[in-house]
Amino acid sequence: MSQDAISLSSSGDAANPLTVEVTRNGVVESRHRGYAAIVDFTGKVQESWGDIKRPTFPRSAIKAVQALPMVESGAAEAAGFTDAEVALACSSHNGEVGHTETTLSMLTKLGLTEADLECGSHWPYREEDAHRMARAGEEPNQLHNNCSGKHAGMLALAKHLGVPTKGYVNQTHAVQQRIVGAMEQLCAVDLSDVAPGIDGCSAPNWPIPLENLAYGFARIAEPKDLPEARAKAIERIKASVFANPFMVAGTGRFCTEVMKILGDKAFIKTGAEGVFCASLPAYGLGVALKCDDGATRGSETMMAALLRQIGVIDEDQMAAMGPWLNPSLKNRADRVVGDIRAAKSWISF
Amino acid sequence: MSQDAISLSSSGDAANPLTVEVTRNGVVESRHRGYAAIVDFTGKVQESWGDIKRPTFPRSAIKAVQALPMVESGAAEAAGFTDAEVALACSSHNGEVGHTETTLSMLTKLGLTEADLECGSHWPYREEDAHRMARAGEEPNQLHNNCSGKHAGMLALAKHLGVPTKGYVNQTHAVQQRIVGAMEQLCAVDLSDVAPGIDGCSAPNWPIPLENLAYGFARIAEPKDLPEARAKAIERIKASVFANPFMVAGTGRFCTEVMKILGDKAFIKTGAEGVFCASLPAYGLGVALKCDDGATRGSETMMAALLRQIGVIDEDQMAAMGPWLNPSLKNRADRVVGDIRAAKSWISF
Repeated sequence: MSQDAISLSSSGDAANPLTVEVTRNGVVESRHRGYAAIVDFTGKVQESWGDIKRPTFPRSAIKAVQALPMVESGAAEAAGFTDAEVALACSSHNGEVGHTETTLSMLTKLGLTEADLECGSHWPYREEDAHRMARAGEEPNQLHNNCSGKHAGMLALAKHLGVPTKGYVNQTHAVQQRIVGAMEQLCAVDLSDVAPGIDGCSAPNWPIPLENLAYGFARIAEPKDLPEARAKAIERIKASVFANPFMVAGTGRFCTEVMKILGDKAFIKTGAEGVFCASLPAYGLGVALKCDDGATRGSETMMAALLRQIGVIDEDQMAAMGPWLNPSLKNRADRVVGDIRAAKSWISF
Repeated sequence: MSQDAISLSSSGDAANPLTVEVTRNGVVESRHRGYAAIVDFTGKVQESWGDIKRPTFPRSAIKAVQALPMVESGAAEAAGFTDAEVALACSSHNGEVGHTETTLSMLTKLGLTEADLECGSHWPYREEDAHRMARAGEEPNQLHNNCSGKHAGMLALAKHLGVPTKGYVNQTHAVQQRIVGAMEQLCAVDLSDVAPGIDGCSAPNWPIPLENLAYGFARIAEPKDLPEARAKAIERIKASVFANPFMVAGTGRFCTEVMKILGDKAFIKTGAEGVFCASLPAYGLGVALKCDDGATRGSETMMAALLRQIGVIDEDQMAAMGPWLNPSLKNRADRVVGDIRAAKSWISF
């Protein structure tokens, strides 16, 4: 695990070996490729596939780290945030009523409103929620943005630091500087010369080598080598997400449903463009993967297969995990026409 | 161009070279790969990239061929279908009002109703159409299915053949047998031992080598070596889609907007899972491509780049083509955060 500044000149164009097949009537119709690293809390790469040194935008997979300074600084405690609210700060949620009400509760505790968010609006992810709103003549606001909980957490940190809340998404704002500092330390990277991209919600997002991202998640799994306040904040975050899997994503979503199956064996968090991370406390391991083409169906099937490969999924959890390990594809008449599966080339189960 | 029965044992696992890059702040965040063939109407492969012998489900890209027996048999003329209706039979439409009304008109001319369709229902593709319906308390029906025009065309053929309309999506139904016969002849493949997959709309869809798919589209571009009735039906289909690009897809869609720019220089048709085909009459060429991972954004950017590479896009059309050749990616605040582009490794413009 190198702690040098990252280079953006990684080869990158190689064909990565983590393959997922999408079939129709038994014929492989489409194929996803990806790269992945399994790293332990000492920084040792336990297993890897493909170009793990490639700088990768962690996108929303990094939200627990983005929430870390809020908890570590005492901002969450000062605001009186519940575990559900801390979990929502680490989430990419569906914009269901349970999510928007929780974001609103966080803002109210801060003396702020929806207008203080700088994430932008979009319709709830689930068709049924969006259409229920449309039928009621409603329009989405910033509370419905899947990142609204993260943004409420950033606002809590700004208030606690005594800095202006306006402009909290700017790269040079104290909130983002605290976050990049936490990322650098946790993932052992130097981001001082790395320009961030702008995320869907306008927050900055720094690309880091995938192996460093996995290392960060290994230290979330086992934070004992970290400073005490940071380790304690990480334990609060883990307790929060394990107790509130619904807050991390929502009804029917991989993160939520798989965490409900696996309990405190895995904190998993997806990100846009096919990133997926996992923190496995009982193993002291972190996992990071990216589906080259950015597809969620690819990254989810890769993550399910890696969790199985590592042994996180017990035999008695296999039935419940089936729809995630080997999802069926149905057509408009609800007929099964194919499936999605990890390729035999890299799995041993 | 082999006319042998296809093998489903194509290597397939190779990394295909048609690369599209998705960037964020100048860094390549995601990458699509694909394969493509440019074939002339004599069957000669003019240029190719990657595994073009791979059996590929053409999905909705093949709709013009699925409509061919309807026109060739006289069913379209007997029903009194307009050019707009023939174009809709070749479409994957948005389910906009102009599309659903045209499907309904086709069914009415046949003495049939929406209940005779066997495609299933889904909400219109565009959020604004779906939410307008939801606000009005409406639910989608089979007319909104993107394949409803194709299905109305299949019903017309069933009526004209004097066979039962019920079950027209079954592989052994006379309608599907006529269609597979047209595919075999046009694309020079023997599908007698090939099992079809089931498409999203429940119609059968036969996998064929990509180069054969491109050959079929070359013969649509220049049908002079085909039997006269078939060639005449192809000319009717081309005239119909060139006069009605809106019917082929809809507002804001690649097929529609690019055909509006290029006029009768290109009939282009997308399919699910990253397939895209083009028929270029002035060149006597057919193009078929598939984005390995099934992403529409990948296949669209590949198609735009191939059209530019071939020279179909004039200099004075370049400004209008910009959003298709090099789309910007915007975030929730409407800020440009990246773009999508064909990789320099395979384009020469």
